[in-house]
Order: sequence, then structure tokens, then C-alpha cells
Amino acid sequence: MQETAEITDKRLLRGARTRGIVLRRAVDLASLEGLDHLSFGRLAGDTGLSKAGIQTLFRTKEALQLATVGFAREMFVDAVVRPAASAPRGLRRLSALLDRWAEYAEAPLFAGGCFWAANLAGFDSKAGPVRDALFRDQREWRETLASELRYAVAAGEIAALDIDLAAFQIDALLSAANTALRTGDDDVVDKVRRIIDGSLTVRG
Amino acid sequence: MQETAEITDKRLLRGARTRGIVLRRAVDLASLEGLDHLSFGRLAGDTGLSKAGIQTLFRTKEALQLATVGFAREMFVDAVVRPAASAPRGLRRLSALLDRWAEYAEAPLFAGGCFWAANLAGFDSKAGPVRDALFRDQREWRETLASELRYAVAAGEIAALDIDLAAFQIDALLSAANTALRTGDDDVVDKVRRIIDGSLTVRG
Repeated sequence: MQETAEITDKRLLRGARTRGIVLRRAVDLASLEGLDHLSFGRLAGDTGLSKAGIQTLFRTKEALQLATVGFAREMFVDAVVRPAASAPRGLRRLSALLDRWAEYAEAPLFAGGCFWAANLAGFDSKAGPVRDALFRDQREWRETLASELRYAVAAGEIAALDIDLAAFQIDALLSAANTALRTGDDDVVDKVRRIIDGSLTVRG
Repeated sequence: MQETAEITDKRLLRGARTRGIVLRRAVDLASLEGLDHLSFGRLAGDTGLSKAGIQTLFRTKEALQLATVGFAREMFVDAVVRPAASAPRGLRRLSALLDRWAEYAEAPLFAGGCFWAANLAGFDSKAGPVRDALFRDQREWRETLASELRYAVAAGEIAALDIDLAAFQIDALLSAANTALRTGDDDVVDKVRRIIDGSLTVRG
């Protein structure tokens, strides 16, 4: 019994490792070429793992796409949202989120830059669970920004404003900056930061 | 000799017609699924024309993609830029451009909404002539907006502002509005219009 349990543990561990290797490559590919271009064959070729093994893990292309979106979301939260959580709530945390986002896009975390900028527009006409997952992430990110704006207004740090509209606007500017960054406009993130800071009236 | 000329004319005419039919379908497809998903076979199936005939006209997939971008640009200019040119220059023409753009995205002119919003982010990591054409169009559109902003400032209609940054910002908001429209947010264009109008201080 114990031996069987050990074998099962080892199998699970190997499955989890394979999954991680495949998904790490998948998020890069999807940020460069879009989630539509993911395939078991391509990922097998890129990672050196067997196509049959990858297919057994994910079963369908849609399941692979959904797992890729989930993996990208975890990486984004680890790189942008979680580090900013150590800043005090309100304007300072919003500022920390924007600083981390700038690093995320400039470094970049994914080979092709922002994962959602690369995929949202391509999936906006394709109803289904992949589109739903991408837009759920976008709503969550806008709500993360809105939450700090709301706090900043309540604390008297900035003048009252239409919170949801301001979050929409910040997100729109970051997406456009990401695209411009990819084509060599290195100053664009600073420019966008100036627009955002300028749009928030700081209470004296 | 005359008969030969007539045959050539008819052939050219037939070629031009076929080209128009294929490209009208191609811009819709590319707005829905992206330029990457264009293929001679798919277009033949959708239009009822022969695959060999379409291939003879365009030769390569890249040439087909470039012709599709050019066709989309002409349709955009006809639907948005040209009609607005009857408005007086400055703030009124800018307003006419934004009205026409709203119709362009809401009607929509292309089955999947804004052609550039659907394709720019997907091509931003793919160096080559297709990316260049898409980004040239984006620059031209931003410059169209910038030109009216510049005029409005010079004419004292609005307060001085960073023209290029303002054009970047308007374009970013329109792109984000296009994506939100596709997923059922029908009020988003009005919301974005309020942001833009609010950002331009009208001289009293």
C-alpha cells in the first residue's frame, strides 16, 4: 500500500512539473502570438516533452488555453498585485501597482509583453469560456485599481471622481502603452504615468 | 487588336471585382478572428470563388494580409475621416471624427468591430510589413486627431495641452471602448466621450 502511494505521489509530482514547464512556455507563446496559436505539437517541440504526454495532461485545446490564462493570472498576481499589497492602501498602493505594472510590461514578464493586451482584443468576438476567463481577469484588475481609488477618495487623498470610469481609463492607457512598448516606444510608460498622475487631483 | 484589348479589359474588370469580393470578406474575417486566420481556402469557401483564382490574384498570404489592411483603411477613411472633413477645422471637426468613429464601432462597419483594435495587439510582437502597415495606419489616425487638437489650441478653442499625448490618450480610450462594446457594454462609447470632452478645457 505504501509503495503504491509513493508511486502515485511521484506520478502526481511529475504531472505537476510537466504542467508547469508546458504552461510557462504556453504563456510566453500566447503573449507573442495569441492563445489561438497554442497547440500540443508546438509545445512538445518547444519543451522537448512528448506530445502524447502533454495531451494526456490537458486533453483539449480549450482546456490548455484556460490553464494558460490561469497560469498567466497567477504570475501577474505574484509580480504586480502581491508586492504592491505591502504599500498602505489608497494613493500609495495605487502608485505601487502602477510601478509594478511598468516593470511587468517593460522587463517583460511574458516574452510578448502584457498577456491580456495580446489576447483580449483577439477574443472579444469569440464567445466561450476562454473569452470569459480573459474578461474576468480584466474586470478583476480594474476592480483592484478602483478599490484603491475609492479608498483614496474616502481618505481625502484625492478629489472625488467617477471611480469605475477612472479605472477603465487607467487600464485603457496601460494597454495602449504595452502595445507601443512592443514597437520600441520606450518612453511611453512614463508618458502614461504622467497622464494618470495628472488626472488625479491631490488634495492639498 | 481591338478584340484583344477588350478581352484584357474584361479580365482586368473581373480581377478587380473578384479582388473586391474577396477583400470585403477578408476585412470582416480579420476583424473577427485576426489577420493570421486569413487563408485562400477559407476565403474561397466563404465567397464561392475558386481557391486557385484567389491565389492567382494575391499570390502569398502576406500579400493578402497587406491588401486586407489597405482595403480596411480605405473603408475607414470613407466612413470616418472623409465625412468629418465637412465640419470646420478644430474642435468641431474633432467632434465630428469622434461621432463618426462611434458609428463605425457601434454599427459596426466590420463584423468584429474596429479592425485595428482587433489586430494591432496581436501583431505588435511580429516584425514585418503587416505590422508596419497596421502601425502606420494607427500613427495616421492619431495624427488626424492631433491635427484638429493643434488647430483648436491655435484658434483658442481649447486650453493648451500636450497634443501627441492627448491624441494617444483618445486613441487608447477608443480602442478600449471597442473591446468593451464587443462584450455587450453598450454605454461605453458615451462614457469614453465624456472622458474625452472632460479632458479638453474649452476656453470661455
